[in-house]
Amino acid sequence: MNALVYHGPGERSWDEVPRPTIQQPTDAIVRIGSSTICGTDLHILKGDVPEVHPGTILGHEAVGTVAEVGDAVTTLEPGDRVLVSCISSCGRCRSCKESRYGLCRGGGGWILGHLIDGLQAELARIPFADTSVYRVPAELSDQQVLFLADILPTSFEVGVLNGGVQPGDTVAIVGAGPIGLAAIMTAKLYTPGRIVAIDRAAARLEKALEFGADVAIDNGSEDAVERVMHLTGGLGADVAIEAVGAPETFELCADLVRPGGRVANVGVHGRPATLHLEKLWIRDVTIMTGLVDTFSTPRLLELIANGRLDATTFATHRFPLGETMAAYDTFAAAAETNALKVVLEAESTRQDLLEHEGAAIGA
Amino acid sequence: MNALVYHGPGERSWDEVPRPTIQQPTDAIVRIGSSTICGTDLHILKGDVPEVHPGTILGHEAVGTVAEVGDAVTTLEPGDRVLVSCISSCGRCRSCKESRYGLCRGGGGWILGHLIDGLQAELARIPFADTSVYRVPAELSDQQVLFLADILPTSFEVGVLNGGVQPGDTVAIVGAGPIGLAAIMTAKLYTPGRIVAIDRAAARLEKALEFGADVAIDNGSEDAVERVMHLTGGLGADVAIEAVGAPETFELCADLVRPGGRVANVGVHGRPATLHLEKLWIRDVTIMTGLVDTFSTPRLLELIANGRLDATTFATHRFPLGETMAAYDTFAAAAETNALKVVLEAESTRQDLLEHEGAAIGA
Amino acid sequence: MNALVYHGPGERSWDEVPRPTIQQPTDAIVRIGSSTICGTDLHILKGDVPEVHPGTILGHEAVGTVAEVGDAVTTLEPGDRVLVSCISSCGRCRSCKESRYGLCRGGGGWILGHLIDGLQAELARIPFADTSVYRVPAELSDQQVLFLADILPTSFEVGVLNGGVQPGDTVAIVGAGPIGLAAIMTAKLYTPGRIVAIDRAAARLEKALEFGADVAIDNGSEDAVERVMHLTGGLGADVAIEAVGAPETFELCADLVRPGGRVANVGVHGRPATLHLEKLWIRDVTIMTGLVDTFSTPRLLELIANGRLDATTFATHRFPLGETMAAYDTFAAAAETNALKVVLEAESTRQDLLEHEGAAIGA
Amino acid sequence: MNALVYHGPGERSWDEVPRPTIQQPTDAIVRIGSSTICGTDLHILKGDVPEVHPGTILGHEAVGTVAEVGDAVTTLEPGDRVLVSCISSCGRCRSCKESRYGLCRGGGGWILGHLIDGLQAELARIPFADTSVYRVPAELSDQQVLFLADILPTSFEVGVLNGGVQPGDTVAIVGAGPIGLAAIMTAKLYTPGRIVAIDRAAARLEKALEFGADVAIDNGSEDAVERVMHLTGGLGADVAIEAVGAPETFELCADLVRPGGRVANVGVHGRPATLHLEKLWIRDVTIMTGLVDTFSTPRLLELIANGRLDATTFATHRFPLGETMAAYDTFAAAAETNALKVVLEAESTRQDLLEHEGAAIGA
Repeated sequence: MNALVYHGPGERSWDEVPRPTIQQPTDAIVRIGSSTICGTDLHILKGDVPEVHPGTILGHEAVGTVAEVGDAVTTLEPGDRVLVSCISSCGRCRSCKESRYGLCRGGGGWILGHLIDGLQAELARIPFADTSVYRVPAELSDQQVLFLADILPTSFEVGVLNGGVQPGDTVAIVGAGPIGLAAIMTAKLYTPGRIVAIDRAAARLEKALEFGADVAIDNGSEDAVERVMHLTGGLGADVAIEAVGAPETFELCADLVRPGGRVANVGVHGRPATLHLEKLWIRDVTIMTGLVDTFSTPRLLELIANGRLDATTFATHRFPLGETMAAYDTFAAAAETNALKVVLEAESTRQDLLEHEGAAIGA
Repeated sequence: MNALVYHGPGERSWDEVPRPTIQQPTDAIVRIGSSTICGTDLHILKGDVPEVHPGTILGHEAVGTVAEVGDAVTTLEPGDRVLVSCISSCGRCRSCKESRYGLCRGGGGWILGHLIDGLQAELARIPFADTSVYRVPAELSDQQVLFLADILPTSFEVGVLNGGVQPGDTVAIVGAGPIGLAAIMTAKLYTPGRIVAIDRAAARLEKALEFGADVAIDNGSEDAVERVMHLTGGLGADVAIEAVGAPETFELCADLVRPGGRVANVGVHGRPATLHLEKLWIRDVTIMTGLVDTFSTPRLLELIANGRLDATTFATHRFPLGETMAAYDTFAAAAETNALKVVLEAESTRQDLLEHEGAAIGA
Repeated sequence: MNALVYHGPGERSWDEVPRPTIQQPTDAIVRIGSSTICGTDLHILKGDVPEVHPGTILGHEAVGTVAEVGDAVTTLEPGDRVLVSCISSCGRCRSCKESRYGLCRGGGGWILGHLIDGLQAELARIPFADTSVYRVPAELSDQQVLFLADILPTSFEVGVLNGGVQPGDTVAIVGAGPIGLAAIMTAKLYTPGRIVAIDRAAARLEKALEFGADVAIDNGSEDAVERVMHLTGGLGADVAIEAVGAPETFELCADLVRPGGRVANVGVHGRPATLHLEKLWIRDVTIMTGLVDTFSTPRLLELIANGRLDATTFATHRFPLGETMAAYDTFAAAAETNALKVVLEAESTRQDLLEHEGAAIGA
Repeated sequence: MNALVYHGPGERSWDEVPRPTIQQPTDAIVRIGSSTICGTDLHILKGDVPEVHPGTILGHEAVGTVAEVGDAVTTLEPGDRVLVSCISSCGRCRSCKESRYGLCRGGGGWILGHLIDGLQAELARIPFADTSVYRVPAELSDQQVLFLADILPTSFEVGVLNGGVQPGDTVAIVGAGPIGLAAIMTAKLYTPGRIVAIDRAAARLEKALEFGADVAIDNGSEDAVERVMHLTGGLGADVAIEAVGAPETFELCADLVRPGGRVANVGVHGRPATLHLEKLWIRDVTIMTGLVDTFSTPRLLELIANGRLDATTFATHRFPLGETMAAYDTFAAAAETNALKVVLEAESTRQDLLEHEGAAIGA
């Protein structure tokens, strides 16, 4: 079979590789129907994630069909269509028992396309299959659920739930890339009074408004703290969500949150930030960090199935799985291509779509 | 001044009564701009609420303008436009300090139009004014906020918040009268996956669908439990909200809630229900009762101000305040008039509206 | 091997039975070191639990040593000393993922000594071993942890945690049998202000005071509601825990809880109760039911290991495992024998104890 | 009357000053029975709190007797014995309605001995008396409740409750001064598995063990992170409480907390700290700051009344109120005097004590 293989910093190729096999009785083999590329994959390619060894197949987001299951797999069988999540859960350790699958101490957590081969491939081995994949209702397309593999639960759990967004709240979201947009989309599930998107790129702020932000602040040209204070009668935002991963944007969040408010950090950071305890100690502020656990995936799936959430708007570009190399080029040049998420589709998935479109045309 | 006075079971009239005066330094006198009638007022007239003495002015919902304040009132001044809530809070007792104003032990709770004169009047004395009224932003009309005086916080706090409605949940609401409709409207703030309205009257079920229910079940002709089980894969509703006040509807809620689910009782009950502990003991069910506290009023006000919530749809009929007697007739005959809420408007309020409409026409 | 076998209502015997074998890759075989008898076992013997088929080995509480594991078991190996809990968890279903193992929909829940062979035996097959047993630290004796198999997590989770006991609270516990005593013991973890035990048997009330109750009320001779009101300045108990399983005691709990308080039902009920909604609707009361999930077992184990909790006081009688028939007689006659829990010990466990005592004597 | 007056950095004296009078209808005048000195008073004397104007009477902790009340005070009358808390609450603003009295926006918060005259005086004016003082049961002595005025609710709310201490937890408390000791004392209300005290002074660590810490770590001579990791099987503390107010100790808390754990900052900070987001972003850590609100005072009072909490151990030295100057000297030299808290007693209080002791001797 073929897959996108990492060959060290800056090096990737679409290679013929051996077909994966069941290694543990809890494994499943999944035939990938649709996959996608994450900003983290670009970080890996820059060499920022040294624990990824050359030779690893990348990718941690996919929808596919179970091809084979190990002896201990009880909830899946060949033919089942499943969402494969960025987080694997052993289901047995203390972290997993507390629904913190991202902190799994039993061999799970973020392993796919990181510590073991990933999902930008024709087939993939999925450890702990019973506790790490989610059955997809037949009436939902791959594209409707694909972004549940990472970006939606990430923004929902680490941003919106950690932020404790409540109806009527003013929610400031710093960073309007895909993660920030997913935070806007999922914050709306709690009907905040006002969503304020903050970014320095006009194109991204425009997208933020399209996704449902009420106010867009260009903090390259405007003082975001002042504006938020003005909007909130001098109080500050109830919730601030960091969706960039830089010290400055984190500090901005701490500056614009109200006394008694919450800062939820979603961004991946490489450097420390300054925490102004000399101001914050008296302000009753809660700051939360976290990696996605994907415990909310069934709930988000229910919302999509009921038409309450439509994540297909993230899919700006589509490629056949065999053209994953080109898809990377498009995704990496997001500033020019305006790519949010690129969808990689196996031949069979494309065939289904064509038939479906044909049917639709025929109807 | 004039007011609607209760004269014993079945007896009410629009009487000339003495103008209210400040009695405690924490009192305010409010000139009523808009008021409305509650189902509870009809109960009082039937003689069901014996602690209401003949001679009492009825009404516990209004928007008005502060006319006078006592010496200890610090947050209000004459001319302020305010929402007067069905619940008064002394702000000093244990219950008030825990935001359970409905259980106030310092002289508040539900007193207006119950233990003291109420709000279907030209003027009213409002005890504990600092902690019992809410300033209304100038840009909001009386009608936009009037139903925050009772029905919206009641359904939101006692139904939706006690029910713990979460995104994606199946919420069953038994009873589609005004309280049930307000539960539908405020449940939507949390984006449930599916709202199921259950009632025996086709007209009310139709209203429920208009207000946002996804499924309407006529439990006169259909087995509601069976239908809810079918909708939820045999599991049951995540949340069941009782909005009638009868043993049968409460028991229905307990029957259709899933293991691990929650029953929130909003209805006012006159008789005991049977609790099937022989089935429920093992099902991890939470049952909550409660009177509204109105702690959520500022949050709901914020949602209205931000255009997230529109309660004006409850106002099916409008009357001048002087025609309150006729308004009662219309409201009491809801089965024929299809009245949800009738709005009583002082002359000045009507004048404002006319000018506003004139301005709109002129524009 | 030998085991205690149920042969239909009123019939039990200590029989030679086939040695259990691994049936699923997730099974383990455990050699029982210590076991005990539950009130539920007596119910089974009375024929009250018809889903227990004649021929079933009884018992759902034990400490033992892993003898053999299936291919998919990853966290255990032969020789590990483990607590086997009354609740098995598949670890894969929605209920298990939400830590509601008692409601497991994947084949777990209460199955041992109920739907499959149990733990009053020399050896037992334990399904879902990775997610259903707990390793016991070497420094803890069987007797220190044995009651974590059922009674302690039951009273803690369903009584104390569902009751939301907080420091300073007045906690009324109705029923002072083993479950009520375990509720007293685990309520003390949250330092309530006052624990009130209510029962009709003087001997049980005496035990309640020994276990840490502050007040004992004999509700055969005294009005318990009046006394609790007197103790709490007319307010009522913050938390009421039902530990009997009768309509009257449940209704007593609802009568003596304060407005805004919580009723936690631990008792197993066979008949419905009357819920006085005509009084309760306005009182902001929360009522919770539930089966134990055992999610708190690691926490309770930690407390025992740190000397914060001593459950050995429940062990009033000890028997060799081979004398389980006599142990049943003693336990069933608790009114005369004052038995709380009887400990059944395998020969090896007794040998260990003797050696330990010998060592202690020799020291 | 006499009082301790601040006259600018380094300057204080026991002066004759005018007797305070009612200024607002919500005021009360309280005759001080017992008062004490806070570390914050020493900061004021150093000039660290510039908003304190010369001429201000210091002190924000007292027990006394109501001498006079304003017209709007409804819950108190002359002769009532009350605890006067460091935090005043207007009871009317959004913050007060959410029980965040420390953030009161209506004129309360920390004002006594800060923005207005304080409590190291014979008499004091207490604004918002109804919502800012607590009646003391007759059976409790001044000394039993005096430390509820600040130190106990501070450590309980900002340390223990913000830290979410649960039974069985490992709680690391950095700093074993009075605030750290109060955190140890109140953490024990939740029966943690292990309390680890960390400090650089041997005398303070000894006190920590006396107050109930299980482990004392001198982080001058030992690597505290390593030791905590060793104690917790490499995981880290469930809760870390900062009770110093320095960047280093805050950073230590962030280093020794487990993934998924909580850092509660109680210390008052003058400088920013470094937040190692490059390590923390993935660790699911919650960090909380806060000023005391004193919402927990009634609960703590209940615990003292029930003998569950004994705060008298903080009182290391006693002085007549007239010798407040000497008391300051003793408290400021805590390193030599080992003072934790010094009690200032009015003549009447001392008389009561003597009579009580006499009675005890006579008995």
